[in-house]
Amino acid sequence: MPPEGTVGTVSPKFERFDEPIVLQSGARLDAYQLAYETYGTLNSARSNAVLVCHALNASHHVAGVYADDPDNVGWWDNLIGPGKPLDTNRFFVVGVNNIGGCHGSTGPASINPATGSQWGADFPMVTVEDWVEAQSRLATRLGIRRFAAVMGGSLGAMQALQWTISQPQRIGHAIVIAAAPKLSTQNIAFNEVARQAITTDPDFHGGNFYSHGVVPRRGLRIARMIGHITYLSDDAMAEKFGRELREGVYKFNFDVEFQIESYLRYQADKFAERFDANTYLRITKALDYFDPAAAHGGHLSAALKQASAGFLVASFTSDWRFSPARSREIVKALLDNGLDASYAEINAPHGHDAFLMDDPRYHNVIRAYFNNIAL
Amino acid sequence: MPPEGTVGTVSPKFERFDEPIVLQSGARLDAYQLAYETYGTLNSARSNAVLVCHALNASHHVAGVYADDPDNVGWWDNLIGPGKPLDTNRFFVVGVNNIGGCHGSTGPASINPATGSQWGADFPMVTVEDWVEAQSRLATRLGIRRFAAVMGGSLGAMQALQWTISQPQRIGHAIVIAAAPKLSTQNIAFNEVARQAITTDPDFHGGNFYSHGVVPRRGLRIARMIGHITYLSDDAMAEKFGRELREGVYKFNFDVEFQIESYLRYQADKFAERFDANTYLRITKALDYFDPAAAHGGHLSAALKQASAGFLVASFTSDWRFSPARSREIVKALLDNGLDASYAEINAPHGHDAFLMDDPRYHNVIRAYFNNIAL
Repeated sequence: MPPEGTVGTVSPKFERFDEPIVLQSGARLDAYQLAYETYGTLNSARSNAVLVCHALNASHHVAGVYADDPDNVGWWDNLIGPGKPLDTNRFFVVGVNNIGGCHGSTGPASINPATGSQWGADFPMVTVEDWVEAQSRLATRLGIRRFAAVMGGSLGAMQALQWTISQPQRIGHAIVIAAAPKLSTQNIAFNEVARQAITTDPDFHGGNFYSHGVVPRRGLRIARMIGHITYLSDDAMAEKFGRELREGVYKFNFDVEFQIESYLRYQADKFAERFDANTYLRITKALDYFDPAAAHGGHLSAALKQASAGFLVASFTSDWRFSPARSREIVKALLDNGLDASYAEINAPHGHDAFLMDDPRYHNVIRAYFNNIAL
Repeated sequence: MPPEGTVGTVSPKFERFDEPIVLQSGARLDAYQLAYETYGTLNSARSNAVLVCHALNASHHVAGVYADDPDNVGWWDNLIGPGKPLDTNRFFVVGVNNIGGCHGSTGPASINPATGSQWGADFPMVTVEDWVEAQSRLATRLGIRRFAAVMGGSLGAMQALQWTISQPQRIGHAIVIAAAPKLSTQNIAFNEVARQAITTDPDFHGGNFYSHGVVPRRGLRIARMIGHITYLSDDAMAEKFGRELREGVYKFNFDVEFQIESYLRYQADKFAERFDANTYLRITKALDYFDPAAAHGGHLSAALKQASAGFLVASFTSDWRFSPARSREIVKALLDNGLDASYAEINAPHGHDAFLMDDPRYHNVIRAYFNNIAL
């Protein structure tokens, strides 16, 4: 096994699509752009492509760094690179920013050609199904008839699952990590609090804050704090911060007292600087809407009838937002259909965020699965 | 057993204290008022008094109704009344609004005698220890030398526990329901999000919103929604709301789509109308601060060395905010001290809110414990 390495310096690429896309909501985008990155080399048979789908807060910048921004390391860099579990010496990896995003693909901050102004509130809702459709068009543009695998964690995993339903002929394997076949009531409820925080922020201006020169910073901060708490396990937070006080004693005021408060405020501030509120709103809605079983009387097995991919499903014991029980629902539906499914339930302390962590047991599962994919 | 009844129409009472109270923070209130209610009759030996302590969102209005507001039923009315588990035919029950509250006791919306204006941001921090001190002064004023029992759920239970530490000679039994000996990191984190939502609301005005004729409604709404989600279990929310849609189909907009959204918005609106933001902030801080073991090197057993009360500790299996494991920490410390402790871990689906529910198994435990208290 060669030593693990980085994909090094990477650059985003852009593809413009002038064929209209009719979204699940009925809205239509006449044209759109997708930002993406690729790592490794597409082989001559064009059989070694792996699509990596992003979750709520991420983008097409999956691995490597930018020449002009060397601290901005791709969000799954620990997993993807030469000699890494998803080995770019063997696979051609594609990361794509989804429609509605805020990292270069057409989204609420893009110019609406009909008005010449930024879309803002008028940008349509997007769904996991819409993203898969756009991703499949990008694949075609890149000359990829069929992905060796589509992979994601959390909302990214929902896209991998949807690929097996929408594009069963174009996906060899689905790698579905820390997923659920649909959100629980509690999941939706947390998303709704985040949305209410954003939409009631006076700087939201009904979604048209761009023209006011402000961003709904307060709302984004709250949304991010809720995310941080719910993506971590109780134990992981306790381990990392405990009840540690910044100054050793109670101050009896509303400044930072506990270290966890400092962490949350810092993360919230950082996020509010960089993330588009309209994108955040729409991505949480896409999460809420995802429910492939709904069109089949609630039967996930029926929704997966056309699937033919091989599956790796992985979950983490301390993930209380998308618990192992939710992954097992997926596995059961796969087995009901006689599909080839591997399932790993990994004893990890990091909660939902475990899918982003560099855990050898987890990474070995991913590595072994990719090693067994014949090209 | 007589049929269970209601305590009927009740009226709040008020006691004014002109002896200064020095708070744990070092701040001093020269005078203060406590709002309270009583149900039942104090016996001639003055030995049948039970103090009921309130949690985050409640008050001294524990049972019965008001003549001019018959829909406003006391928050623990299902537990307290003639023939009920805490039987007012036998016990004299006292409910008290804590200092810093917003239901009649001196709090941030009261007039600061030093300025002639409402306290607002200048109202000091209050702690569980401060509340116990004020409650003990009220007891003295009412001629109660010793409570037969002090009882509470959640933050109320922390007060019952603190009574056994601060006033061991004045409490016969502590009934400690859905408690924790201190908040976890995750608990503090959720409180901090609620506080950030309130304090960053432009209508908060640094805590001095009274003089601006506004309330930080947006922040209070977010705080309440987080509370609702975390006080309920995932299963209870799923059972009650599932993924039910208000109009049966996705609307692809940001209006209410899922019933859970409707519920959260409704509860949030109601709460923002009636609860004082400065009180909410201070009560969450009192929760965060509570940690009787801290002064004893983290040893809860050492903190309880002087305790002599009998204890009933009860927890609920689906309570993920104050889980049974947290109650067991308390029980262990009690047993370490050779104290008389009963522990009930009740299999209930309602999460932390189970302590407010009318569950026969739970209520039978409470009833049996009170039946065994000799007066």
